[in-house]
Formats: sequence, C-alpha cells, structure tokens
Amino acid sequence: MSMTNRWDATALAGLGEEMYRWIERLYPLCRSITGAGVEDTLAVLREQVPLHIERVPSGTKVFDWKVPREWNIRDAYVKDPTGRRVIDFHANNLHVVSYSRPVHKQVSLAELKAHTFTIPEQPDWIPYRTSYYAENWGFCAAHNVVNALPDGMYEVCVDASLQDGHLAYGEYLHHGYSEEEVLFSTHTCHPSLCNDNLSGIALNAMLASLISQVQTRYSYRFLFIPGTIGSITWLSRNQQRAQSIKHGLVVTCVGDGGPFRYKRSRRGDAEIDRAVEYVLRHTGGAYQISDFSPYGYDERQYCSPGFNLAVGSLTRSSHRQYPQYHTSADDLGFIGPNWLEESLSVYLKVISVLETNQFYVNKFPFCEPQLGRRGLYDDVGAHPDPNAFRMALLWVLNQSDGEHALLDIAEKSQIPIDTVAEAASALHHSGLLEMAAARP
Amino acid sequence: MSMTNRWDATALAGLGEEMYRWIERLYPLCRSITGAGVEDTLAVLREQVPLHIERVPSGTKVFDWKVPREWNIRDAYVKDPTGRRVIDFHANNLHVVSYSRPVHKQVSLAELKAHTFTIPEQPDWIPYRTSYYAENWGFCAAHNVVNALPDGMYEVCVDASLQDGHLAYGEYLHHGYSEEEVLFSTHTCHPSLCNDNLSGIALNAMLASLISQVQTRYSYRFLFIPGTIGSITWLSRNQQRAQSIKHGLVVTCVGDGGPFRYKRSRRGDAEIDRAVEYVLRHTGGAYQISDFSPYGYDERQYCSPGFNLAVGSLTRSSHRQYPQYHTSADDLGFIGPNWLEESLSVYLKVISVLETNQFYVNKFPFCEPQLGRRGLYDDVGAHPDPNAFRMALLWVLNQSDGEHALLDIAEKSQIPIDTVAEAASALHHSGLLEMAAARP
Amino acid sequence: MSMTNRWDATALAGLGEEMYRWIERLYPLCRSITGAGVEDTLAVLREQVPLHIERVPSGTKVFDWKVPREWNIRDAYVKDPTGRRVIDFHANNLHVVSYSRPVHKQVSLAELKAHTFTIPEQPDWIPYRTSYYAENWGFCAAHNVVNALPDGMYEVCVDASLQDGHLAYGEYLHHGYSEEEVLFSTHTCHPSLCNDNLSGIALNAMLASLISQVQTRYSYRFLFIPGTIGSITWLSRNQQRAQSIKHGLVVTCVGDGGPFRYKRSRRGDAEIDRAVEYVLRHTGGAYQISDFSPYGYDERQYCSPGFNLAVGSLTRSSHRQYPQYHTSADDLGFIGPNWLEESLSVYLKVISVLETNQFYVNKFPFCEPQLGRRGLYDDVGAHPDPNAFRMALLWVLNQSDGEHALLDIAEKSQIPIDTVAEAASALHHSGLLEMAAARP
Repeated sequence: MSMTNRWDATALAGLGEEMYRWIERLYPLCRSITGAGVEDTLAVLREQVPLHIERVPSGTKVFDWKVPREWNIRDAYVKDPTGRRVIDFHANNLHVVSYSRPVHKQVSLAELKAHTFTIPEQPDWIPYRTSYYAENWGFCAAHNVVNALPDGMYEVCVDASLQDGHLAYGEYLHHGYSEEEVLFSTHTCHPSLCNDNLSGIALNAMLASLISQVQTRYSYRFLFIPGTIGSITWLSRNQQRAQSIKHGLVVTCVGDGGPFRYKRSRRGDAEIDRAVEYVLRHTGGAYQISDFSPYGYDERQYCSPGFNLAVGSLTRSSHRQYPQYHTSADDLGFIGPNWLEESLSVYLKVISVLETNQFYVNKFPFCEPQLGRRGLYDDVGAHPDPNAFRMALLWVLNQSDGEHALLDIAEKSQIPIDTVAEAASALHHSGLLEMAAARP
Repeated sequence: MSMTNRWDATALAGLGEEMYRWIERLYPLCRSITGAGVEDTLAVLREQVPLHIERVPSGTKVFDWKVPREWNIRDAYVKDPTGRRVIDFHANNLHVVSYSRPVHKQVSLAELKAHTFTIPEQPDWIPYRTSYYAENWGFCAAHNVVNALPDGMYEVCVDASLQDGHLAYGEYLHHGYSEEEVLFSTHTCHPSLCNDNLSGIALNAMLASLISQVQTRYSYRFLFIPGTIGSITWLSRNQQRAQSIKHGLVVTCVGDGGPFRYKRSRRGDAEIDRAVEYVLRHTGGAYQISDFSPYGYDERQYCSPGFNLAVGSLTRSSHRQYPQYHTSADDLGFIGPNWLEESLSVYLKVISVLETNQFYVNKFPFCEPQLGRRGLYDDVGAHPDPNAFRMALLWVLNQSDGEHALLDIAEKSQIPIDTVAEAASALHHSGLLEMAAARP
Repeated sequence: MSMTNRWDATALAGLGEEMYRWIERLYPLCRSITGAGVEDTLAVLREQVPLHIERVPSGTKVFDWKVPREWNIRDAYVKDPTGRRVIDFHANNLHVVSYSRPVHKQVSLAELKAHTFTIPEQPDWIPYRTSYYAENWGFCAAHNVVNALPDGMYEVCVDASLQDGHLAYGEYLHHGYSEEEVLFSTHTCHPSLCNDNLSGIALNAMLASLISQVQTRYSYRFLFIPGTIGSITWLSRNQQRAQSIKHGLVVTCVGDGGPFRYKRSRRGDAEIDRAVEYVLRHTGGAYQISDFSPYGYDERQYCSPGFNLAVGSLTRSSHRQYPQYHTSADDLGFIGPNWLEESLSVYLKVISVLETNQFYVNKFPFCEPQLGRRGLYDDVGAHPDPNAFRMALLWVLNQSDGEHALLDIAEKSQIPIDTVAEAASALHHSGLLEMAAARP
C-alpha cells in the first residue's frame, strides 16, 4: 500500500486550514434535515468531491418511518411592542426551532416565553432545538435577552414552508480493488454549529478528496446525510449493499481540542474497533474508549440489530460531553485548524491500518525457511530499524497460518504495524508468503 | 410480572417476626435424619404451607446408598455416683449423639469420657455430633461440666430405638405458566440449632407461602429434607423430573447478622449465579461470592456431575464459618427477626430477577422504530426516571436479538432491571417486541 | 506413578555434582554444528545414556535447508611480528570463528582487526561468533589484547577443513506405556560455553539416565542436536513421528543461579505450559513466564506453524539475558552444581505432573457415592493431611466428568496435585473411578 506512507505530517500540512475555510463558508447556511440549507451545503462540497446527490420524495416509506415534508425558511423574528426585532433569524439561524411551522401573529409576553427556549445556566448562549415530528412553532434565544423583555404584545413571525418535497443527501463511492466497503458517514442536518457537525462534514469531505486520489484495497463510501432519518433512508434504500460494509465510522465532532473518544461498534471487537484502538494507543495523546450504547449519532441505525454493522464513532468532544454542545457557543472559535488536521491524521492512520491488515499464509510452514540465501538479511541491514525488521520477518513467518492478520501480529509482537507490513511485503516478494482471503 | 413489585419492604414488614415465632416453636424438637422430630417439624410447617409428606421405607436403595433405619429417642442421661442427672437430654437435645444406639449401663468415668464430646476452646458450649452410619453410643456436653465430674461409676442411658421405619420429607410444588422449575431446598435434620438450620426451614416455608399466593412464570418446588440422604433420596426418586430444574438454591443459615455469602453452582455462570450476584451487587450491603466446592450442604448432591444442576447456595454465616456453628450457641439469641426479614427480601429479589429475565426479539430490527407515534415518549414523560426509561427503551430494542435476556441488558446498560423490564413491557404492548424462548 | 515420589531431594543429592563433572570433561571440546567436537561430546554422553548416534550426509535436503559440510579444526592462531602466538585456539577454542574457512597468510594489523571480533564493553572477555552460511575466516579475542597489538604484519592461520561429511546427533527413546511422547531437546553446537549449553546437555543426559530406570506412562525422547540445523534435520526426517510429541521442552541455560524462566509454547495454553507454570508456582522461588516469540533456541523450529508442537523452553538466565551470554565468561565458574541440581529437580517435577495428569471418569456420577462403607474414610485417617485428602476425594469425584484432568482439579481445589493423585488412586482402587482417554 504505497498510500500508507503518503500522508505523513508534511503531506497534511495546510489541510487543517483548508477544512477550516470550508467550515467558514458553510457556517451561515441554515441546514435542517431537509430544505435549501442542505442543498446549498452539498453544492459547496461538490466543489471538492464529485458527490452524487440523491433526492428522496417526502412520504417515501423508509422502514418504520416516512420521509418528512421539506422545510424551507426565509425569515423568522420576534418584534417587541416598539417594533424592534429582539429575536432575529438573520442574526443567527439557531433562533428558530428547526421545523417550526409558519406563524405570524401578535402574542403576549407570556405566550412568547412559552414558545421560547433559553439556557438559564448559560444566559448568553442560544440553544439549538428541533421539532421534526411534533408540529409546533418556537424560538431559541439568550436567556438574558428574553429575561429583559418588557411586558406587552409581541409580533412573532416564522416565514417558513413545510411542504412535500425531498430529502437530499450526498454520496461518493471510491472503487478499490475489492467491493468490500469502508463507510464514513457524517450528518448534515445541523445549522450554525461548528464542532457538531461542520467539523465532521469538512473532515469527511477531505477524506473523500484524499482517498479519491489513490488506489486502495477497499472501496470507500462517504455519506453526507441528515441525522437519523438520513441513515434510515440510506439503509432502507441499500439494504443489500449494506452487507458489503466491512468497516465504518460515524464522523462527527472532530474539530475541538478535546482528547479523542472512540465508541465501539455494537460488535465490540470488530476489526474497525481494533484498528482505531491500535491507532489511538500509538498516537501519543490521551484518549477514551467506550462500549457501544444505543444513543448518540447514526451508529444507532448502523448498529441496529438487523444490520449490526461494524461501525464505530471516532470523535473528540462529542454528544452531550461539552457545555457548548447544541448551543451558539459551538461556533467558529470553538474549533481550530490544527485540531481538524490532527483528527484528519488519525482518521488516515486508521485507514492505513485497515488497508494494511492483510492475511498471509506461510508457504514454508515446516521449520523456518532460510532467509539468508534469499537476500532477506540484506534487507535487514538496509532497514532503518534492523532489529525490529529481523524480528518482524520471524513473527510474520511464524504467525502467518491463516489465523493471524498483520494487526494481530503487530499486537502480539509489539512491533509497529508498518514494520510488520514491510516484512510481510519482503517475504511476499521472496515467494515465502501468499496472500490469503480474510476470514469470513 | 405484577409479583415483582408486590414484595417491597412494606409488604414484608412483620414477616421476620413471624418466621422467628415459627423457629421458637420448632427449636425444642429433636430432629434427626429420620424419626418423630422430623415428623413433628413437618406437621408444624403444614400449618403454613400445604406440604405433601413423603415417607420412604428404611432399606430402600437410593443410588449408592440405602435409606437408614428410623431413629427415635425418648430419653438420654448420665447420672453421677449420687444419682444426679449431670447430662440430661431433656435439658438440651444436643446432649445425645444423633443416631446413638440404645445403651443402659454403669461405666467408669474414663469410659464415659471416651464416649463424650466437648469443645475445650468453648468450655460452656455443647457440641453437635452424629453417628449415622457407624453404630455407636455417645453424649455431648459442656467441657466445664465434664471436666468437673468426680471419679466413680456413672449410669449412662440412651432410651432410643433404631428400627425399620421411614425417612420422611416435605415437598410443595407451586405450578407456574411453565413446567420449568425453580428449586428451593432446605435441610430438616438438625436438632436445636437455629441458624443451621431452623432459619432455612422458616425462610423456605415463608417463601413457599408467599409464592403460593401469586401467579408465576416458573414452577417452584420447595423441599424440606434431611441433609445428604434426603437430597440423595429425592434425586433418586425424581431423576427425570430433576431435568426440569432450571435454577435452584440451597436455603440455609439465613438468620444471623453476617454478610450474605453466595456459593456458585458447579456451572459457575448459570443464570441463578448471575441473578444472585446481580441482586447482591445492588442490595447495598457487603457480600461474598465463592466458587463451587464439593463440600457444604445439599448442593453437593444437586451439583454432582451426573446432575450438574444450576443450584447455588445463598446464606449468611454458613457451614464452618462461625464459632457457634454446630454448637448449643447457635441458639435463639444468635438469630434475629430483622435478619430473617432481610434474607427473605434478598431471596424474593432473586425470584423477581428470574421471573423477569425474559428473552424478547425486536420485530423491527432494521434501524430504530419510531417511538413517538406509538406514544412511547408519553410513557417516558410519565416515568419517575424518564432518562433511564428512555435509554431502557433504546437498549431493549437494540439488544433484543434473541441473544440477550433482560438481565444481560440491565448489566450492559447499567439500568436497573426493573426499569429495563418496564421498557420491555411497554415495547411489547406496542407490538415492537415479541417474547422468545429462552436459549436451551 | 511410583516414579512421582521417587525423586525427592534426598534421591537427587549428589546429582548436581555429577552433572558438573560431566561438564568439566566436555568443556574443552570444540563443538560446532558438525565435526569431531560433537562426535567426541556424544561419545562422552554415551557413557551415561545409550544414545543412538545418527549421521546425516552433507548436502542432504532438510526442508528449505541443506545439511552443511563438516567442519573440523586442528589449530588456529595469530602470531605477532615477533612470532609470538597472541591469539591461540589451544588456549580457548572461542578464539576462532566457528566454521571459519582455512587461511594461512601474512596480514596487516588493519586487516587482522577487520577479521577479529571483540567486546569493547567487556574488554577481557572473548566473544563467541559463528559464520555457518557465509564463507569467511575470523578470530575472536579480548578487546584489551587486540587493542594492545603493535603495528606490523601478522601471521594468521586457521588449520581447518570444510568438507563433505556428516551432521551427527544423539537420540534416546525411552518407551512408556503409551506411544505418545515427551520431547527434551538440547543443542550441542556450542564450544566452551557452560550455561549455554553444557548445562543443558548435562541436564538432558541426567534426565535420560533417570527416566531410563523407571516405567513411565509416556514415552520420552531425548535429542542432542546442533541448534537450528539439527532440529530442522530431525523434524525433516521425522515429520510423521513428530505428531506423537504431546509435550516438550527445549533444555538450555539451566546451570546458573538466576530465577527460572519459562517461555511458553506457541499454543500458549498447552498442557506443558500449564504443568511448568504449576510447578514453578509451587516451587517457592521467583520465576518469570513469557509468551512464545519466534526467537531463541530450537523452539523456533518445533513451534513453526506447520508443526506447532506443544514445546516450551524452561531455562534460568537464557538467550541474551545475561552479560556473560556467548562470551568466554560463560565458563565453569558461572555455573554451579547446586543450581544444576535445583534445575534437575524442577524438570523432574514437571515430568511428574505430566505423568500424573490423568483423566478419570466417576462411575457413580449421580449424587456422591458412600465413601465410608468402602473404607475410604479409613484412608483419610491414615493420611498425613487428612483434611486435604478428604477434600481431594470429594473434588476428584465431583470433577471427574471427562472434562477435567487431575491438574485441572488441583488448580480448582488448590489442593497439591500429589494429594489429588493419591485420592484419585484410592477412588480408582475402590472401583469408583475409571481412567479415561485424554481429550484429543
């Protein structure tokens, strides 16, 4: 896999800045699970990745659900008795509850407050709220602002439409040597929130762009979908194809400075689980591993018992784990180019482990073959770490019985997987190994 | 299982006192492995539980053993040279070695001492001794008493009979929806000893009485049998039926104030083992768990390799673990109504876990089903712990693949099993789950 | 197994001294992977053990290798410009690189140094070097000696022959009741080095001598072979027979005072692994256990994936783990008779566990059989540790279901395996147990 070593720190330099600039462009768009904000977002991403855009009509049955009507919003505000806009969608699109039904009327302060969400503990932050499946109207605002409103009648206006239309999502498939797939899925339904999930969108697009430039063992599928209903829709339309997904990650919350957190797939010991944990263990920084739980992001759907796909979630500060979560404080200042670049690097290392993790079979399994007369000791001498390489040759020969892939051997021998892979490659070229099919 | 919640602390109030009063009545009776003391004990228990009394003739072959002759005792004493009763069966029935053969003669002090057991380390306590299978005569007495006896000739008398008769035991079967059984077995062969085992007898009778009043999933079998020979006899006569016993506990030593001790079944990871450990882990107090060993009480027979039943033993201070064990100090003052009631509560919680621990299968396994339109989020709002209940809904749906029963889900999710069961019940009523057969 | 108890400390007294005397005789011989030094060594061993000597012609194909030409050396020296022997094979046979090709010429000091190995960190020690498969000539010497050599021309001479001949090894097979074999393999290719591996040679010969005097359950095969090429040769010629090897140890580095080190077989949980760990755990001293790695001694070949034999390596200070390793400091002063005797004792205990570790099946698996009427309680009374013996009777009966061998039972019950074996023997004689075949 020449790609394995292609993405070292030098190669990635500047890509964090690039992702950050994409996020700056996408930040003002008012995304939801349907509507123009999503379409506009996908259009920006198509500048980087040749995404295929799928549009599924409202009302389409997807497993136990129906694709909802399309929500589009033009304006939303609250005017105080003097006519001043005290809550203004154009100032921050979090101000309107996502999927709020249209409304335009005068209401008392009491009624206004009954329809307005605030965070008393963080009185300057605007919360993010949705009402996808219960028809309602509502606003979100800073507690300090709402608290200071004088008594009187207020004009409330949500100039939105909720009509039959489409649910749109973006998809890009990179073909590898194998039709077995690695899935990277990110949700596109959040409005002006940066870590959750413009960071995931940008990282997923950058991964797709980088992978599109190399030859790979696996095929790679990148999904840009609204949360929950999007993955349900995709899985409903691709029930057979989903069986080709051998490994996957839900990409979200990768732009802040927190430690990496890996939430295992429902299987718990899938190859993706071992690959991510291997990379985090050897990356140097602090990290956390947690078992699967049926809460969080789209891993809930990929890991539903009927699919039980090997899909985990690799994040930094994630779902409900940081105070800025789902508030206006999850803004452009909360994330940083360096952290995005670091996350990109970890994701690429995971890909590298998956690509590398072949099964080989020793064609000379009875006693050790003679390495010297095949020039392999010359390779040892030429290697930057001759001792590790020599041991890697012996380990690969000894363990390549069809039961151990290279990641197994790296873990058993405590030799870096790159060195193990180099040894396997040398032995393969010498005719001592042959590639074997992965275990079913 | 409405029964699950029926036995809270309020419902149990006073039952400890009631068990203690039964024990006070049973304390003076001279039980052994056969004879009138056992019959009288079973007669008292029949006032509480409609026990069926089985009587098996002496000489009946039971596996490698034979039912012994019946031992009945009327009097036993040692008179000193002045004619005073210095050891008197009527003062404490521990004074005679159980199954002592009849004797009436004059013996020297030396011969008397050769036939008399004492505990030098506890000079005021009378030990408990038996001689079931080696014919002999003997007395037990306080070391201080025997030590002070003057030289001279002593009249020893054991007015007992050892003749063909019967081995009697009590049995009560409560029929549940299923013919699969839960066994509670207690030994009835000890004379005036309270923790070992009037406490077990009383608790077993109380359990039988309570279970007889409710509808249950499992059938429940309560045995009141002499130790060793009784379980061997029952198993010999019920070899086929024993295969229906899915879970079981040997009930003994449950009246003192020591921490709970659970000795696992020979299988070690049977459902009963996991259920008891779950209850003890969530009960609050200290407890001890030990692996099976082939020593102790009737679990030795239930867990013999030919049966290997899932039978553990749930006790407090048990077999050889307390100084008062098998001495006159294991008396009415060593046990207490509050401790009996606490033990009862733990046993009932174990029953509740067994009754609750169903397998369900998610009928909508592909992605999550939509909970809102089935009113399940309203159930969430109405629950005393809405967060736990919401998570329990998701966990049950995710894990109900036929591989995980509710106890598995409670342990994985760390949500109380009662909440998990409530969620399963709500999902079942909504048509999202169906019950599945337990794994074989 | 009467042999189990035959080798207590008293019986072994003096055997350490005996092994040490053998080592003193073998120390001066210049062994290599072929040649007269090996033949002479085997001749000395045949005084103790009726070894069969195999001679395999040079050029014979053995798996991926060929048996090398035979190397014989008569003299080797370096003379300084004054004609003085400054490096002299007759002073220490480590001075010549093993398999050095013949040479006799004048060289400059610079060329001499290019062909001479020293250890700068240990300037008084002579290193041990070989060049089996790359034709070359060379010397080894103390760094201080070489460093002090004045400029000038030096006469170098290796009076050796490298010609078609034979590879010789010694083999002794002791026939037991079973054709299943226990393998003890030691390497004979090292010249004047004591711990590595005259200690292993002497211990292996002593084991063979002792085993030859007793009747055993297993057959025992003792190999005295040159490292690597010897085990490859033996395995190549005995590919079918190797399947009879059920347990094995590579015997080396057993003469120094370091703690015991056990390197597990590639299987990791083979019976030999459990037996050695059991013995070390109960021996009292410190010890170390490590997983298999494909480096070290002939376990590399026995544990190659095509064979994957249950062969571990039980040593003291071993391969690369002590500064004297492969230097002239691994001499007669580095090892000691007491340590050899201690190692012998541990090896014999391992053999005892293997011999003892039978499977039995309880013929009375339903409930406990009655021990008293078979006189087994009399055996209890007669045993030096009656409590342990009584418990052992119960444990053996309970666990002898065909799934647990005596070592399993010893580990579960924490009763010494000798007591467990005595109980099994008593139960067997009483007709309660029958022997079962080992699990395949």
